[in-house]
Amino acid sequence: LFSFSDRVRRTIREHELFSSRDRILIGISGGADSTALACVLADLALEGGPAIVGLAHLDHRLRPDAADDARFCSELARALGLPFDAEEADVRTDAQQSGASIEDAARRIRYRFLERIAERRQASRIAVGHTRDDQAETVLLRLLRGSSAAGLAGIYPRAGAVVRPLLDVTRADVEAYLRERGVAWREDPTNRDLTIPRNRIRHELLPYLIQHFGVGVPDVLARQAAIFRDDAELIEGLATELASGLVLQEGRGLAIDIARLADTPRAVARRIVLRALREVGKRFVGLAHVEAVLELARGGGLSQAIDLPGQRVERRGDRLVFTAVEPDPARQGRRRGRPVTQR
Amino acid sequence: LFSFSDRVRRTIREHELFSSRDRILIGISGGADSTALACVLADLALEGGPAIVGLAHLDHRLRPDAADDARFCSELARALGLPFDAEEADVRTDAQQSGASIEDAARRIRYRFLERIAERRQASRIAVGHTRDDQAETVLLRLLRGSSAAGLAGIYPRAGAVVRPLLDVTRADVEAYLRERGVAWREDPTNRDLTIPRNRIRHELLPYLIQHFGVGVPDVLARQAAIFRDDAELIEGLATELASGLVLQEGRGLAIDIARLADTPRAVARRIVLRALREVGKRFVGLAHVEAVLELARGGGLSQAIDLPGQRVERRGDRLVFTAVEPDPARQGRRRGRPVTQR
Repeated sequence: LFSFSDRVRRTIREHELFSSRDRILIGISGGADSTALACVLADLALEGGPAIVGLAHLDHRLRPDAADDARFCSELARALGLPFDAEEADVRTDAQQSGASIEDAARRIRYRFLERIAERRQASRIAVGHTRDDQAETVLLRLLRGSSAAGLAGIYPRAGAVVRPLLDVTRADVEAYLRERGVAWREDPTNRDLTIPRNRIRHELLPYLIQHFGVGVPDVLARQAAIFRDDAELIEGLATELASGLVLQEGRGLAIDIARLADTPRAVARRIVLRALREVGKRFVGLAHVEAVLELARGGGLSQAIDLPGQRVERRGDRLVFTAVEPDPARQGRRRGRPVTQR
Repeated sequence: LFSFSDRVRRTIREHELFSSRDRILIGISGGADSTALACVLADLALEGGPAIVGLAHLDHRLRPDAADDARFCSELARALGLPFDAEEADVRTDAQQSGASIEDAARRIRYRFLERIAERRQASRIAVGHTRDDQAETVLLRLLRGSSAAGLAGIYPRAGAVVRPLLDVTRADVEAYLRERGVAWREDPTNRDLTIPRNRIRHELLPYLIQHFGVGVPDVLARQAAIFRDDAELIEGLATELASGLVLQEGRGLAIDIARLADTPRAVARRIVLRALREVGKRFVGLAHVEAVLELARGGGLSQAIDLPGQRVERRGDRLVFTAVEPDPARQGRRRGRPVTQR
């Protein structure tokens, strides 16, 4: 009914991803998604859409044939008449040193690279190729790891300068579009490694859900992500508003007024505690950590203090006090191992 | 570490399910969950907990051996020294006539039966045997069908007079407890019918998730349900508060002020529209229906009106007007076919 580029245009309009005055850098891996993104945005540019300032490719050095991907992207840029930037990064070493997963390290390095190139090329937006399949996978991944509305909100159509014009089309749409245009793409064989949770979701769980619970499952998950985006915005906004009267600086840590926390709707109290934990501990904070602190605030347990990664939380009279704890020097190497929460 | 009955006691205390002055009716199917519930609550009663006024069993007449279940429950009641009430209901015929699924019809009839017996026996609470496994299954079922926070909140520990003391223990805990006490239970062979979505989740999807994403998955899902309960409470509360200034009676329907709806946080606007649609149309309303109305309010599409099940929604000047539409008499039989949303 609607062409691929019509649907991309609709996503751009609906989420106000950019205007015709923007200058766009496109992140490209050589896979079907980003290849289609480059083609469709290049078309829009010719029709008076925003200018494309170039394609940018990061070689993660994770596969022996990674150089072929870079060559493919370079040729695509030439075919589209666009500038091309490429860099190599040693993701594996970075992940080992930082204690992060390969996936998290790659994502962090990639976005930093894109931001650097965007600045150099004076781009106002960075377009990346996430599709609705990525969205459905992300929602399932977050659900299985445990997440609140902010996590189930999934991938945002726009986050800062980063925009995702393919977020309402599927991977199948992308491949059909490329085949129709006669454009080739590169397959990443590591996508087939099922020990990576996202790949297991992509190649096993989602196909199973589609087979037994309906072809509409990815759509349903993406629609829920949009609803959770709005819920998260509301609740996080209330948390920001209410935290100002509740949370006080206390030495090098923070203190929260227990009586006023108890008067706050629990959904908001949970976010206020989560933020305090993140600010003081500078580590990954899970839902169970937040619940433990809320339980301490209620005074339900016998304990007057709990030790959490990077910090200690104590009940002192009418206040909860969050104090950073110096990491054990022997474990210093793992200190940077907190997952990157960039979306 | 903690015994089964300690953990049940903790759930009762944490969610304030009942006090020692309450009088409890227990819904019993003869399955492991409700059998364990009867045993553990009978123990608590002996230790000064609330009085048990009896066991109540509804024979759904869905299986040839249903009478054996009733006999088992009757014997259990006698062994525990408790009064026993049983009734039969023709669930299949009711489902056919109402257009509801067997599962929905059975649930509706069962809770009505329990309320009736509770009144007769002067019970202040109705205890039912849902476990954390039921909770995890419910969260997945709602997610796959599409739901907002209110749906992902899953099964409530307490809803009106209905309380669920087993909501923090697993089905495996329940069976271990019964084996240890030497108490038998009845297996329901229809639980194995994988064409029923809940059974497919129970016997196929959840075991798969536990195998590949960790034994903690049911716990993670249950913990998220608790978070969504709080989120839903907050957002639904705001919707109630803000709706009073936004939604007006209009003939036999409702009208919503478009400008004021636009000024409402979208998370809240979505709930206000959902409630208006439910009130006027008296049918099942899905997330897609709500989005269509919000799109109409934004004036994004060309249309000035949309037809939804049981109603028409029109843009009239600065208002959205919701009007009930008489059902086509030829389809009258399906009119009662809206899913029951009782939890």
